[in-house]
Amino acid sequence: MRITMLAGGVGGAKFAKGVRALLRSPQFQRDHPDSALTIVTNVGDDMWLSGLKVCPDLDSIMYALADVNDTTRGWGRQDESERVSAEMGAYGVGWPWFTLGDLDLGTHIARTGLLRDGLTLSAVTAQLCSRWELGARLLPSSDDDVETWVELEPGYDEPEAVHFEEWWVRLRARVPARRFIQRGVDSAQPGAGVVEAIADADVVILAPSNPVVSVGTILGYPGAGGRAGVPGIPGVAEAVRETPAPVVGVSPIIESNPLRGMARQCLEALGQECSAEAVGLAYGSRRSGGLLDGWLVDDADAAALPSLRQTGLSARSAPLWMTDAETSRQLAADTLDFAAHC
Amino acid sequence: MRITMLAGGVGGAKFAKGVRALLRSPQFQRDHPDSALTIVTNVGDDMWLSGLKVCPDLDSIMYALADVNDTTRGWGRQDESERVSAEMGAYGVGWPWFTLGDLDLGTHIARTGLLRDGLTLSAVTAQLCSRWELGARLLPSSDDDVETWVELEPGYDEPEAVHFEEWWVRLRARVPARRFIQRGVDSAQPGAGVVEAIADADVVILAPSNPVVSVGTILGYPGAGGRAGVPGIPGVAEAVRETPAPVVGVSPIIESNPLRGMARQCLEALGQECSAEAVGLAYGSRRSGGLLDGWLVDDADAAALPSLRQTGLSARSAPLWMTDAETSRQLAADTLDFAAHC
Repeated sequence: MRITMLAGGVGGAKFAKGVRALLRSPQFQRDHPDSALTIVTNVGDDMWLSGLKVCPDLDSIMYALADVNDTTRGWGRQDESERVSAEMGAYGVGWPWFTLGDLDLGTHIARTGLLRDGLTLSAVTAQLCSRWELGARLLPSSDDDVETWVELEPGYDEPEAVHFEEWWVRLRARVPARRFIQRGVDSAQPGAGVVEAIADADVVILAPSNPVVSVGTILGYPGAGGRAGVPGIPGVAEAVRETPAPVVGVSPIIESNPLRGMARQCLEALGQECSAEAVGLAYGSRRSGGLLDGWLVDDADAAALPSLRQTGLSARSAPLWMTDAETSRQLAADTLDFAAHC
Repeated sequence: MRITMLAGGVGGAKFAKGVRALLRSPQFQRDHPDSALTIVTNVGDDMWLSGLKVCPDLDSIMYALADVNDTTRGWGRQDESERVSAEMGAYGVGWPWFTLGDLDLGTHIARTGLLRDGLTLSAVTAQLCSRWELGARLLPSSDDDVETWVELEPGYDEPEAVHFEEWWVRLRARVPARRFIQRGVDSAQPGAGVVEAIADADVVILAPSNPVVSVGTILGYPGAGGRAGVPGIPGVAEAVRETPAPVVGVSPIIESNPLRGMARQCLEALGQECSAEAVGLAYGSRRSGGLLDGWLVDDADAAALPSLRQTGLSARSAPLWMTDAETSRQLAADTLDFAAHC
């Protein structure tokens, strides 16, 4: 079974580990002997910092699948140190709001060197990932630089616009976003293999990642009430609309609370409501030009199932909290079972 | 007293510390209340490695004057670690023959980031140096990329040409050099302030650095016996020839042995003899179109003084071995005294 997932960083990584655990289970291997997981990963968080290409989402997933991520902090590498960034700070260089560990910098320097040698981000990602036994293939949603920037509401003594990571990490999303801008998106193309991975999949899954700045920066997300949406990488949403595979999404929101992160602030910037129902409706049913065949919500949101189904979507509820490896694996199983019945 | 020195890395650093110690001594400060040391530094060893701009000579001098250099290994920072480069190696990236420590990488990333922001190497160097109390101003000999490459003699199962650092560090200069090529030198200009620092100096000193690949890549060094020389940065030798200040050089060779490094192999590649006398003669007297007013050799080479003087050079002998801070300071004092009497 060829599974293609579209995902952001940490939330996507957790779900991806669940899918991988399922794929590695003896029963699944018996039932689906040639299974493979492909993860199309958001690149909107990527940035150039001090001449280095930093890819937070790609790295979060790579580190998590390699089991070298720091689960306590929730980001970066285990057993990390910060000797290099301390030096940079002493020179008056760097990003005090975005600490990079030494091991993490090894990734960024390796990536940057290969990019400067002329490799594409896909090719570089493949080389970096080949170090580990990830059990999944990571594909950047684009090989082009497509950075998510945040136009801030005025009156907060902040710049007119900051990179999404600065808004997220330094400002903790406390300065309201007026809108998101995907710099470079107009001329961007889907990353190598992305369209094929969606077209040739047996199932396509939208991971429970931030619907605006993770999945939205891949597939687009509409604005409402006169607010701008985000466009997504041209060609990827089309591939999702046209794939013969069932397309199911897992809600990143439970009882109007994001599973993690600040999806509420992101959705508000688009004039959108923060609920499992609203996000499912915004993605929409493929039967009426949307992206989904099925939308999986938490059992706590089961009341939303009828109105979701009214739009032509399949909808089902399941426990969505991924509190450990087993609940992540179970959610992966529930998602694939749901997809088989959409 | 404005002292301008032209220097390579480690040898230049040792001598520079001697000059700085002299300038800081109460008696010298009494006699010369407004003294300043400017060091025009070789950039030929600079290279781009994995997208990072590495400047070995600038860093050797900066670290030494900041008293943070590793005096045991003879290069890099004290208390160094190599976590980042181990990561890079695990990704199949990097330069196994050229280990970069974590603290050292902090410098390279800071430098590269500022260069990518559009600053010149001079401006970047000034920012990096402002972290410390160096007691000297470091000027890159050029703001342009001018890399010294080594065309190797064939028959050694090596590439046709390698960067000088690779020849020096990986090959230990054991594969003979056919010639040195300063890539980019034709269109290079003197670094910001270099010509002025030479023109406005009260004394110009050629440090006891490698005459071919350190001082030679700044000022040029002639070939002999049909071998090519090195051209130097256009305009710098002219500034030395025209400055009203006395120009004295300190021999990097004692009794036909380089003070350190592999000057013999470098000189041989140019068809030149490795002796204090031969290097003094190759630099030549300013009276006859050369670069020097005076040439300081070791007491062990005093026999060469008459033939040096025959060419119009002032020549003197003194103890040149810099075995500790005091001998370095004494050599600086001897050099300035010599310059005052040229």
